[in-house]
Amino acid sequence: MDLNALHKLGYGMYIIGSHKGDKLNGQVANTVFQITSEPPTVAVSINKSNLTHQYIDASKVFTASILHQDTPLPYIGNFGFKSGKDVDKLKGINYKIGETGAPVFLDHATACLEAEVVQAVDVGTHTIYIGRIVNAEILSEDACMTYEYYHQVKRGTTPRTAPSYIAGEKGGEK
Amino acid sequence: MDLNALHKLGYGMYIIGSHKGDKLNGQVANTVFQITSEPPTVAVSINKSNLTHQYIDASKVFTASILHQDTPLPYIGNFGFKSGKDVDKLKGINYKIGETGAPVFLDHATACLEAEVVQAVDVGTHTIYIGRIVNAEILSEDACMTYEYYHQVKRGTTPRTAPSYIAGEKGGEK
Repeated sequence: MDLNALHKLGYGMYIIGSHKGDKLNGQVANTVFQITSEPPTVAVSINKSNLTHQYIDASKVFTASILHQDTPLPYIGNFGFKSGKDVDKLKGINYKIGETGAPVFLDHATACLEAEVVQAVDVGTHTIYIGRIVNAEILSEDACMTYEYYHQVKRGTTPRTAPSYIAGEKGGEK
Repeated sequence: MDLNALHKLGYGMYIIGSHKGDKLNGQVANTVFQITSEPPTVAVSINKSNLTHQYIDASKVFTASILHQDTPLPYIGNFGFKSGKDVDKLKGINYKIGETGAPVFLDHATACLEAEVVQAVDVGTHTIYIGRIVNAEILSEDACMTYEYYHQVKRGTTPRTAPSYIAGEKGGEK
């Protein structure tokens, strides 16, 4: 069995936002996907140890900003390799408060979505949140970043808390 | 609200296989994604009206073959725009019977996975099947097809039963 086959699955790159009262946070995710078209719903898989998980559990809302291909690695690193428990990730970042009350991140985004959680599925280390779309906007027509591009061209790495982390792979926290 | 924003989500292109006894079927899907790394699990979203849905419900197993970028449209059309209720989709197609008893499709595949369903999540028109990986193989190092490439370069279209179908979009059954 060669689990590297899982690296061939296709994803985009997203910043997920949520809130708990007036506290805001965001994190990188690669697993955002449409679930149904009628009504329009999307799902996102979030590690239970992440602060954003706590916030989505509390507010039952999340946002997703879809990153363009040329998003700088430090921008991704800010959201992907730091914890909102330790630092204020939103310092110096452009965002607006969406209809859901959660932050919608505007830098390097081709589009953004807002969703209200209708179902939370416990899948062990992660929860899959399924959300009904309440807002969706296109922000640019730039090419979107794929997870493959992030790895192969940008030489980005995967944190241990990601669904797609494979033990022993090159990289890790940076 | 501009639901075309959902088209910017990133996916790959896959042929999903399953069986019911000695009856075999396969269908196109774009929503296959890793859910956890420990243990390795993947999810796939399948329309309840599809024959493959009946087969996965019966056998509790599915396979996923990850398509390479140059997969011919007629190959995708055979699995995506026909129903196994009407025709034998496997006629003339190369496949092997995997460890799960389900067909693993070998044509135009860069990798293949086999999974045993551990959870089935009802999400309205679709079911999300979450499966524990029991086999995974890399078949080639060709570039994988993205859903965006399928639409923009190959000019492929989306059937009404797909999670990512948006009413009124150009294309449809062909």
